[in-house]
Amino acid sequence: MSTPEAAILDHIGIATLNVGALAARLDAMLGLPTVGHGTAPDDGVAVALLSTASQASPIVAPRLELLAPTSTASPVAKFLDRRGPGLHHIGFCMPNLDAVLARLHARGVPLIDQVPRVGLDGTRIAFVHPKACGGVLVELVETI
Amino acid sequence: MSTPEAAILDHIGIATLNVGALAARLDAMLGLPTVGHGTAPDDGVAVALLSTASQASPIVAPRLELLAPTSTASPVAKFLDRRGPGLHHIGFCMPNLDAVLARLHARGVPLIDQVPRVGLDGTRIAFVHPKACGGVLVELVETI
Repeated sequence: MSTPEAAILDHIGIATLNVGALAARLDAMLGLPTVGHGTAPDDGVAVALLSTASQASPIVAPRLELLAPTSTASPVAKFLDRRGPGLHHIGFCMPNLDAVLARLHARGVPLIDQVPRVGLDGTRIAFVHPKACGGVLVELVETI
Repeated sequence: MSTPEAAILDHIGIATLNVGALAARLDAMLGLPTVGHGTAPDDGVAVALLSTASQASPIVAPRLELLAPTSTASPVAKFLDRRGPGLHHIGFCMPNLDAVLARLHARGVPLIDQVPRVGLDGTRIAFVHPKACGGVLVELVETI
């Protein structure tokens, strides 16, 4: 049982070369329907969003965020070169991103983004450095 | 919006050398309380379970499953040697694991476990090979 303060899991980011092919395969294998597409121009990626289910409410179920680079300069292209396709990051909802970043910065937590920037669909996001989180790249997504 | 058939996300597995230290850090940073500990002797790992929240119901929110090897023969020890700490696998709930495995096998999907084996807390589990899932190691957890 989580406390009321526990962070809400928003998505799992997966790096791939072809979002459409992987989305179709995962849906056929496991049942993970594609519920959206998008781009994050700042990150140089094309995105497919796959819904997982929740017994309580499908609306708040975390999504799989399939990411394919749209340029060789994309951090995801570099990730694929270095590690190959697979799990890339996890994203949590944060209702007040500025306050969260200020608190983490004050505690000396290494941040990739000191201030929020624009992510998928115009959301405000920031990444925490993997070295702060046991090697896991963590994205914070502002929820309003 | 997911279809009724969409798979339910059960957990995200994270490989680490020290589950207690990482659990404390993630809770302090993001709010992810530890809700359980366990071992999976077949896999040679000690486990801490961290709860994420769900706006709808904390009971069905996916957990972070921190995994530390308890022997050098553990697959997680080999993962840490090869890739370092970080995201390791994702787990989905499957209500009828035998039927799911039979269906995947019949379709030629490469499976690590052709038949279910015992996982955390005595659950029946099976792993799908990462090459079937875009480089992502996928665990199927039987839910009753």
